[in-house]
Amino acid sequence: MILDIISKKANKYELTKEELETIFLGYLKDEVKDYQMSAFLMAICINDMSDSEIFALTDIFIKSGDILDLSFIDDIKVDKHSTGGVGDKTTLIVAPLVASCNIPVIKMSGRGLGYTGGTIDKLESIPGFVVDLSEEKIKKQAKDIAIVVTSQTKDLAPLDKKVYALRDVTATTNSIPLIASSIMSKKIAGGADKIVIDIKVGNGALIKTKEAAERLSSLLIKIGTYYQKEVRTVISNMDRPLGHNIGNKLEVMEALDVLKGNVKGELLDLSLELASKMVSLGKGISEKEARKEVTENLENGKALNKFLEFVKYQHGDIDNLNIEAKIYNIKSNKNGVLKDINALAIAKLSESLGAGRKSKDDKIDYNAGIVIKKDIGEEIKEGDILATLYTNIDDPKFNLEKIFEIS
Amino acid sequence: MILDIISKKANKYELTKEELETIFLGYLKDEVKDYQMSAFLMAICINDMSDSEIFALTDIFIKSGDILDLSFIDDIKVDKHSTGGVGDKTTLIVAPLVASCNIPVIKMSGRGLGYTGGTIDKLESIPGFVVDLSEEKIKKQAKDIAIVVTSQTKDLAPLDKKVYALRDVTATTNSIPLIASSIMSKKIAGGADKIVIDIKVGNGALIKTKEAAERLSSLLIKIGTYYQKEVRTVISNMDRPLGHNIGNKLEVMEALDVLKGNVKGELLDLSLELASKMVSLGKGISEKEARKEVTENLENGKALNKFLEFVKYQHGDIDNLNIEAKIYNIKSNKNGVLKDINALAIAKLSESLGAGRKSKDDKIDYNAGIVIKKDIGEEIKEGDILATLYTNIDDPKFNLEKIFEIS
Repeated sequence: MILDIISKKANKYELTKEELETIFLGYLKDEVKDYQMSAFLMAICINDMSDSEIFALTDIFIKSGDILDLSFIDDIKVDKHSTGGVGDKTTLIVAPLVASCNIPVIKMSGRGLGYTGGTIDKLESIPGFVVDLSEEKIKKQAKDIAIVVTSQTKDLAPLDKKVYALRDVTATTNSIPLIASSIMSKKIAGGADKIVIDIKVGNGALIKTKEAAERLSSLLIKIGTYYQKEVRTVISNMDRPLGHNIGNKLEVMEALDVLKGNVKGELLDLSLELASKMVSLGKGISEKEARKEVTENLENGKALNKFLEFVKYQHGDIDNLNIEAKIYNIKSNKNGVLKDINALAIAKLSESLGAGRKSKDDKIDYNAGIVIKKDIGEEIKEGDILATLYTNIDDPKFNLEKIFEIS
Repeated sequence: MILDIISKKANKYELTKEELETIFLGYLKDEVKDYQMSAFLMAICINDMSDSEIFALTDIFIKSGDILDLSFIDDIKVDKHSTGGVGDKTTLIVAPLVASCNIPVIKMSGRGLGYTGGTIDKLESIPGFVVDLSEEKIKKQAKDIAIVVTSQTKDLAPLDKKVYALRDVTATTNSIPLIASSIMSKKIAGGADKIVIDIKVGNGALIKTKEAAERLSSLLIKIGTYYQKEVRTVISNMDRPLGHNIGNKLEVMEALDVLKGNVKGELLDLSLELASKMVSLGKGISEKEARKEVTENLENGKALNKFLEFVKYQHGDIDNLNIEAKIYNIKSNKNGVLKDINALAIAKLSESLGAGRKSKDDKIDYNAGIVIKKDIGEEIKEGDILATLYTNIDDPKFNLEKIFEIS
């Protein structure tokens, strides 16, 4: 039976919802083995899935676990998701921006595996910050200040989690239908009414091509429509890291700088775009009107105040955000112009410094990270500092040429 | 590294021999996990392999284990292989036929998994028959009577065995390149100089279409050429069982009947064709000349005598081949003409009666099996016996309509 279903997908036939349930729910119950699921996932990667297969799979993922009930909030719940990139601290900027416009932001995040930490890890790098909140506390905080970020208490889409862990070790991560149903099942189980999704594309992202990003965008919107959840997407570049700081504390510092109005460029632009889309969805106004409001709240300090209020409410001490680490500088070995900064190479370096987590039990060094000192297009002299590394590891290794392209 | 190789195949790029070695030898050493290998095998099933990939894989399989040294025999060593079918007892007929023409036949077989037993199981169903022979005994017997069938003492192509076991449970059995390298690695490691391969095609076989069978035939010959081993193939039908008897003792009985000249039809024809090809290869004569010799030795009883000599030499008591089982008859429930006998349905029924082995530890009931009483095209009356079942299981279940098509 299981083998027949796998064969059917291998031979490019469309599967019914019952067949998808048989294999995926069987996997959740350990009746379908890892080696059978991985063969099946590879068949999906190569032979794709139809829309109705994708809707069915999303449904199976959602129903595999809890569904968050956010009905205690009367307003429309808008959530934001990023497919993941190097130096992506937009949530830290966007959440207070949106909340400052009176759109509640209630995010339940997991601790990510990867080269750099997730949003929860970044917030936990603030001394005292508490991420494990009871349901009662979440409700009170949402009503009091309209912004909550908490670690996952409910078991949202556990089947997606199990499948994702297998995809990660079997070269089956880059299937657009699998990515789409994974994202949407988590967001829908998370209780969102409307969702803004930042699709990262480039060498530092899971999605490498514009075409794949566009397919993903269209699928996310379709799944949203199927569930009557409005979805808007942004496709943003991830050939280079986003912003200058990579690493948990360092990213909080950069986010704070953006909210203070001290930083211009790609990170600010993307944050404004995402926030505008969320406010537009939340208030039912045009993105242009929303952007005006969002920009105002950045400039008048309301967004910054919301961030400080939020950190304080969750017991974080933002004034004691000191980096305790040894410092190493990467210096240029030639004259020229900085042509490129490789996001993937930066991510791997950042992990090697201690800023990431390979397995659940790894401990992140919140102090570890990288600050990039030069921008693309800048003229570089031999001996110039290209980046500063923060780490508690002795004698960190890096390959200058792999990270910085100077010519 | 492993994930890069899997991705490369998933994205339809050709792999180098080094890459194939990394993943397959890694699998042999358990460094590559089952779930990674199964994803990789699925990518091969869907995206195919190039000739040079197939040659490389065959080589990796061969070198993973022992290589049988048959140099103690001066003559050309001709081997025969079948891709497996229901009621296929041709080895029991062909081996003595060929040996009676003074071409030595030394077969080292494994105990098969499947709906019915393998050649070793069939021979072991003869009371007293010994299949575990020492190297010394094999050599002596080969020189004395030119025919030996023994269970596997050497570890031939163990990697192929490990990969095959995984393919069996992950719906990745039907890849022609994987089938070709599996067969050829075992035959070459088994010491054959020239090889005749019977490719079964139909609903009761692994290979379902004529096109796939032809692709396999051409690949087997190509791999043979690469190793300077002459290969000839026969493509034979497996929509229906071969012959009338299915089950271990019952198949020995039918083989004996063929050698006695009591049976005409498909089983005899295929046996003569395979034997002629082997004798032609062994003696360097035309297939026509070879067929004359083979037919003569069937008619003059030399083949039968060789079979009896062979069974006696390995301590088998052919005169005590009694079926000890309960008998059930399948009777027709209508009048009509027998249009078809479904090989796969017969195979599954035969296993349910006790004639097959699903896992290594299952015990075969040598007495169990099926004798088909009617031929395709025969007129059937309601109440006619279509088949007789032999089993020690109470009240065997069968679905008449799935096995016999009468209209």
